[in-house]
Amino acid sequence: MAVVLQNIPRADAEVIRGFGQAGVATVHEAQGRRGMLASYLRPIYAGAQVAGSAVTISAPPGDNWMVHVAIEQLQPGDLLVLAPSSPCDNGYFGDLLATSAKARGCRGLIIDAGVRDVRDLTAMAFPVWSRAISAQGTVKETLGSVNVSVVCAGAHIEAGDVIVADDDGVCVVRRAEAAEILAAAEKRLANEEAKRQRLAAGELGLDIYGMREKLAAKGLVYRPFGADHGD
Amino acid sequence: MAVVLQNIPRADAEVIRGFGQAGVATVHEAQGRRGMLASYLRPIYAGAQVAGSAVTISAPPGDNWMVHVAIEQLQPGDLLVLAPSSPCDNGYFGDLLATSAKARGCRGLIIDAGVRDVRDLTAMAFPVWSRAISAQGTVKETLGSVNVSVVCAGAHIEAGDVIVADDDGVCVVRRAEAAEILAAAEKRLANEEAKRQRLAAGELGLDIYGMREKLAAKGLVYRPFGADHGD
Amino acid sequence: MAVVLQNIPRADAEVIRGFGQAGVATVHEAQGRRGMLASYLRPIYAGAQVAGSAVTISAPPGDNWMVHVAIEQLQPGDLLVLAPSSPCDNGYFGDLLATSAKARGCRGLIIDAGVRDVRDLTAMAFPVWSRAISAQGTVKETLGSVNVSVVCAGAHIEAGDVIVADDDGVCVVRRAEAAEILAAAEKRLANEEAKRQRLAAGELGLDIYGMREKLAAKGLVYRPFGADHGD
Amino acid sequence: MAVVLQNIPRADAEVIRGFGQAGVATVHEAQGRRGMLASYLRPIYAGAQVAGSAVTISAPPGDNWMVHVAIEQLQPGDLLVLAPSSPCDNGYFGDLLATSAKARGCRGLIIDAGVRDVRDLTAMAFPVWSRAISAQGTVKETLGSVNVSVVCAGAHIEAGDVIVADDDGVCVVRRAEAAEILAAAEKRLANEEAKRQRLAAGELGLDIYGMREKLAAKGLVYRPFGADHGD
Amino acid sequence: MAVVLQNIPRADAEVIRGFGQAGVATVHEAQGRRGMLASYLRPIYAGAQVAGSAVTISAPPGDNWMVHVAIEQLQPGDLLVLAPSSPCDNGYFGDLLATSAKARGCRGLIIDAGVRDVRDLTAMAFPVWSRAISAQGTVKETLGSVNVSVVCAGAHIEAGDVIVADDDGVCVVRRAEAAEILAAAEKRLANEEAKRQRLAAGELGLDIYGMREKLAAKGLVYRPFGADHGD
Amino acid sequence: MAVVLQNIPRADAEVIRGFGQAGVATVHEAQGRRGMLASYLRPIYAGAQVAGSAVTISAPPGDNWMVHVAIEQLQPGDLLVLAPSSPCDNGYFGDLLATSAKARGCRGLIIDAGVRDVRDLTAMAFPVWSRAISAQGTVKETLGSVNVSVVCAGAHIEAGDVIVADDDGVCVVRRAEAAEILAAAEKRLANEEAKRQRLAAGELGLDIYGMREKLAAKGLVYRPFGADHGD
Repeated sequence: MAVVLQNIPRADAEVIRGFGQAGVATVHEAQGRRGMLASYLRPIYAGAQVAGSAVTISAPPGDNWMVHVAIEQLQPGDLLVLAPSSPCDNGYFGDLLATSAKARGCRGLIIDAGVRDVRDLTAMAFPVWSRAISAQGTVKETLGSVNVSVVCAGAHIEAGDVIVADDDGVCVVRRAEAAEILAAAEKRLANEEAKRQRLAAGELGLDIYGMREKLAAKGLVYRPFGADHGD
Repeated sequence: MAVVLQNIPRADAEVIRGFGQAGVATVHEAQGRRGMLASYLRPIYAGAQVAGSAVTISAPPGDNWMVHVAIEQLQPGDLLVLAPSSPCDNGYFGDLLATSAKARGCRGLIIDAGVRDVRDLTAMAFPVWSRAISAQGTVKETLGSVNVSVVCAGAHIEAGDVIVADDDGVCVVRRAEAAEILAAAEKRLANEEAKRQRLAAGELGLDIYGMREKLAAKGLVYRPFGADHGD
Repeated sequence: MAVVLQNIPRADAEVIRGFGQAGVATVHEAQGRRGMLASYLRPIYAGAQVAGSAVTISAPPGDNWMVHVAIEQLQPGDLLVLAPSSPCDNGYFGDLLATSAKARGCRGLIIDAGVRDVRDLTAMAFPVWSRAISAQGTVKETLGSVNVSVVCAGAHIEAGDVIVADDDGVCVVRRAEAAEILAAAEKRLANEEAKRQRLAAGELGLDIYGMREKLAAKGLVYRPFGADHGD
Repeated sequence: MAVVLQNIPRADAEVIRGFGQAGVATVHEAQGRRGMLASYLRPIYAGAQVAGSAVTISAPPGDNWMVHVAIEQLQPGDLLVLAPSSPCDNGYFGDLLATSAKARGCRGLIIDAGVRDVRDLTAMAFPVWSRAISAQGTVKETLGSVNVSVVCAGAHIEAGDVIVADDDGVCVVRRAEAAEILAAAEKRLANEEAKRQRLAAGELGLDIYGMREKLAAKGLVYRPFGADHGD
Repeated sequence: MAVVLQNIPRADAEVIRGFGQAGVATVHEAQGRRGMLASYLRPIYAGAQVAGSAVTISAPPGDNWMVHVAIEQLQPGDLLVLAPSSPCDNGYFGDLLATSAKARGCRGLIIDAGVRDVRDLTAMAFPVWSRAISAQGTVKETLGSVNVSVVCAGAHIEAGDVIVADDDGVCVVRRAEAAEILAAAEKRLANEEAKRQRLAAGELGLDIYGMREKLAAKGLVYRPFGADHGD
Repeated sequence: MAVVLQNIPRADAEVIRGFGQAGVATVHEAQGRRGMLASYLRPIYAGAQVAGSAVTISAPPGDNWMVHVAIEQLQPGDLLVLAPSSPCDNGYFGDLLATSAKARGCRGLIIDAGVRDVRDLTAMAFPVWSRAISAQGTVKETLGSVNVSVVCAGAHIEAGDVIVADDDGVCVVRRAEAAEILAAAEKRLANEEAKRQRLAAGELGLDIYGMREKLAAKGLVYRPFGADHGD
């Protein structure tokens, strides 16, 4: 049942741009602490921060044939999202594929597997969040699918969903909810700035957030450090 | 039995400063190869080297409420040490908490769990040694304890113990032994410099340390590489 | 049966130099996708790219005595390759041993265990690919062997084999096959450059590699994204 | 956005019964090698084989409150499927909850976290497939959801999907596809029996499946074992 | 600083017997959800349930010399608890050591490393909870310590503490708190039996524990399963 | 370079029978603590103990085609040994292949990947030592090799080597050394029996092996348990 779904819907470009500025932690909180991909996905270099529309790939273990197929489906502003159909650390993607993807406007790759040529990819400023860095090559023998829904690093992703990625990891936002979540994220950012200034001035979160009563009600006890503290 | 132990004893500031210069590998050797936290704790950026007094946090999985409580207990020169009560990779700590901790003179965080906003923390030069980088947020519902003894990344730590951390990892020194261990570490450093020069000049450790006889006594055999080497 | 095999054969220096320029991914492909060490071996700093002749060490867990023995066997252009006889993350190697190895012309270390003093090693530009960074020290009590064949990070390595390492990982090439593999690697590099230019200009791999017919023959279906895509 | 979705649709009871007889490997193949949950989910005792309708639970790390909520939603023939909202090994479920679930006709539990009281559960013949066995208890402080779609052990599961589990692991079948997949599975079982008899009689798969030509066409070479076999 | 501490204090034999009947999950809850060793410690065979006084061993990686030393310190009713000084999976313990330990009244072994001869140990009914099963042998070259405090599988254990172990894992109780914790555990067991009967009769935990109001107050919403449930 | 090496040499059948009786731990010790495969290989059921000649398979990830090819190469008394060319947990082998292998006299399977139909395999008494149990199926698209040397679970194995496996794991013995190692193993077994009786009678290893002097010479100190024991 190998299929390529074409002409996927995408979120509004302005909304995607907004997510690129908000960052992962804020977006994730703004949608109720949902949507994080597993923390084992790590960027190949520090400092990249992107958002884009997911072009998804479901690929067999050790076979990167469908990456070539997916690249044809890319539009400027997209991100490739690859999930192997069973766990695999092979290097599915390197500098040639990155050159091709970049030529079509792709902003980066999220891959629950391995990537290689990381020095070249870094020099090209083509960001990748991966499970592994591995030069182990792949074959082109077995079909997979493009733009079907996938589970990538523990998160369910539909083609056209918004992917946000930075040094803290990767988060997915449903396309239909994107505008609403962005608004919540931006409100959150504004709110954080005020708190940051109060905290920098030495105020305590205990006071700013009014936590002392709730802690006492739950039974928190303060005692001097001493002989009977145990563990 | 949620408790905050106040007014913990701390090691002498001069001693702590000395540990900050000695580095982890030397301190660990100087106390008889004890005290290393597990090697899966990694710094969020390279190059930080700190020592400080442990303010410990025992926190439930996925709940960072006690971090706010612990920050009030910080004094300049302290390090936060967080151990979840069961394994958890959530991002307990980010730039707002770091701003607050830094305002109270905190030198960094050791956490057997996740941290987020790592780009901001790096820009602030607030060092963190963590098990994971994860934007996955936490709740504030369940109590834990502050300044009780904890097991963090496989090491037993008491509040007020000296924590030493650098690119090689994290080491704990008992407060009562700190001065004695520092003296041993400094002697070791002086001794190493002489050896480094001899090794750089091409002398062999086999000769400097007088190992040849002991190796022969244990039965080490030298043979030319050839047909029968097997494995 | 602790043994040190002396006067190992090495590949031609010109060939080794060629491998140092080709890089891991290319070399690995050029020999039929064989020879990669496990992807958990990671460089302690980015950007190093080396090739050299393997001087192998089989060492007991937590015991680095044989590293001293192996250093005496080094010639300029060699790489140390250490495999513990059972899994171990201890820091077998630090700045003093690196100073000694470097004085004998050693180009770096591949170790399926831990390394320490990574800040110093980075400053010395002594590259290491390791399973862990750990300050945990080792003893000098039990013999191992030098220049016997070992399994390091899942790959079988003979003393004198050519080791290639860069940011993508570590690859081994049999000494007897080195010249032939290098030739294949260089042909591959030349070939890749032409493809890179076509891909950068927007041509698709689907067309360059003539994949469309094969994909259709295997049964790949293109469909518009829509109501029935399921997963 | 904590929600309990009530009155979920379920597959036909006869179809579910059929899946219980077919077993995981067959069902998974019959639907095109899709639907396996990660292999780290293991049964707490050998020999259980079940199928049922998924009642799903999305629960916070270390908090089993929603299990109580989910039990009220159970009907005879259901299976509980619990996915923590971030990785957690705590023991969410033990003999009291099993007693309650069993009283409502529940056939077992699939949990991407820990379970406890495994001796009691075994004695009750209440099967569990879990990531861990752990007595570590949980709290009841934070809401989650029931019967929302979840990702459990890497697989996307909707409430009412059919879950099949045996000693080989756990597989999910979409409710809407259940009848069709069962038919394919039953055809496959019939077909396998014939092959089993031929193989038991000493015929080779190479001949039964007509593989020899394809292998030769791909380039497989037969050679006598000898001096130049290399690796 | 290798030391053997002799004549350790032990908890009352009657108290220890009580813990042996209570089981791990109950004891762990009775002391406030503290004291569990990591869930990766697994019994080598199902069905063992023991309690005993800890005779602790801190051993180097790959070196089981101190096990011989520890056996002399055993008294009837003790359990050996071995923590390697750095992570190691070697088989430190097999049927000969078990024969010796059993001859001195030892009730079993808790080991954050490997064990071997598991078929013999099972036949002897000598229970072991270990991190690994491994035949990989060890040496007898380097000292460790006996009856010092250790961190074993993430838990801090003092010689003479009470260890409770069954199919759910391993829990430690401080010697000084043992009588008090046992009383709490026994009360808990009595209480559970009443609940078990109500749950078996079909009553819901939601009602028995009065959870409905708290869930509503936290904001839990009930909705029919339908078109807009999302995830 | 896909190749099938035919007519491999095998060790003497009497020698192999002897290894089957000696067991893994003894054989491994008898050859100087070499040859263990990694401890993550576990038997699918307890109690099997076998020895046989290795018929090796190097297979691509997720592709079991070469298993069919290897079965034709089996002779009575052989064991299949499968190493994927990169890490993979898929279920390469199930009851149909086991039926075929058994029909040719195969004694079992060692696989650094997954296996399925474990209930059937157990009922057939066809033992398997594997890295995973997984129903995830494989394809038949890409060639590998049979009877080349492989690295399986960290050990280098040549076709025709003797494999010994039991509940403690898997060990490899070089074919050319088999008779000599067996003799050493049998001597060891005889020697152990005498020690077992002395230990069972209450003698201490400290005395039987004469360890007390060596421990004292290394500096082991005995002290009463008390106030200053530290850790």
